[in-house]
Amino acid sequence: MVEKIYVTYNQVHKLCQESAERILNEVKPNLMIAIGGGGYVPARILRSFLKKPGSPNIPIQAIGLSLYESLGTDPVEQPGTKVTRTQWLDLSSLEMANLIGKNVLIVDEVDDTRTTLEYAVRELEKDVLEAQKRLDRQGEKTTFSIFVLHNKDKPKKGKLPEDFDTSPSRYLAAKTVGDVWINYPWEATDIDEHDKLATTQGSE
Amino acid sequence: MVEKIYVTYNQVHKLCQESAERILNEVKPNLMIAIGGGGYVPARILRSFLKKPGSPNIPIQAIGLSLYESLGTDPVEQPGTKVTRTQWLDLSSLEMANLIGKNVLIVDEVDDTRTTLEYAVRELEKDVLEAQKRLDRQGEKTTFSIFVLHNKDKPKKGKLPEDFDTSPSRYLAAKTVGDVWINYPWEATDIDEHDKLATTQGSE
Repeated sequence: MVEKIYVTYNQVHKLCQESAERILNEVKPNLMIAIGGGGYVPARILRSFLKKPGSPNIPIQAIGLSLYESLGTDPVEQPGTKVTRTQWLDLSSLEMANLIGKNVLIVDEVDDTRTTLEYAVRELEKDVLEAQKRLDRQGEKTTFSIFVLHNKDKPKKGKLPEDFDTSPSRYLAAKTVGDVWINYPWEATDIDEHDKLATTQGSE
Repeated sequence: MVEKIYVTYNQVHKLCQESAERILNEVKPNLMIAIGGGGYVPARILRSFLKKPGSPNIPIQAIGLSLYESLGTDPVEQPGTKVTRTQWLDLSSLEMANLIGKNVLIVDEVDDTRTTLEYAVRELEKDVLEAQKRLDRQGEKTTFSIFVLHNKDKPKKGKLPEDFDTSPSRYLAAKTVGDVWINYPWEATDIDEHDKLATTQGSE
């Protein structure tokens, strides 16, 4: 049976808080992209901790991705092809141009198979490059980094671009866990019971 | 001095939970639009409670609006002009067409001056009508409703379209409060202290 862990809101809050200093020092983000729905809550919390006194908030752009459950009929699985977009950035507008030359932090709740994260990074990189060409701003360097609350330590189907391997600070997980089932608080039907389970799970 | 209230994550969670039945019965939403950053957390929580067994999740689209602080030099304040868009739906794509004929629930954390909500409703209604014309789907009725965690009972600068007055179920606030300062948990620099203040505030 897969082990289940329960994470409270305050734990999520503290995971963001604890990671903020590293993010500010190593990623220096100008912009966050929240992968919805799971990235909404951590991105909003993180924004509070990334704000420097006297500076404006770091803007958040949201995209919507969901992992399409393959029926398993394909003999060879195509990486990154099972993701469907429910929301994307407007390529023609300022939304995409806003990314050019920036340090962009992609935020999601969990890195499970890495499929969604691979899709997000590769597609965003591609679209920004196109926007840079179109606007003749190819000299500017756009850097994508990743923040997740939890990384599951398991073989990954998705593979991040190679420059992630050489710049380990571009991938940041607040916590690394085993291949467990993570219950996030925003999915709890009984939040008091959820919190109780979170408290007792370590002591059993 | 303005009274300050402290709201915990679990209270936010329960406000969404308590409102879900009314939303399902009266709004019957097909889609949510989260106004970022404040609407991200309630929209994500609400999605869990709006899910019916066997049905897919209600999709969330995010928009980004921030209230531009007027310098107060204009003799007459223009309603809805102080809002800036940091993200919007892609008019040319499916994102906007997806709204046509739907019950759309706009989600934000607080209704303070109502300026942002007025802007969101009016601009979305306008853009959907344009999309309906362009796609020759004018026969379909798109209905916008609003959910906020807190409505501040005070004179409002923003005014919702008239049909909101005749359909009171289209405006839903989980809680109505006075003109107080609301501290949401995602803004707390010390979440334990925040929770303590939330516990003691009623007893002082």
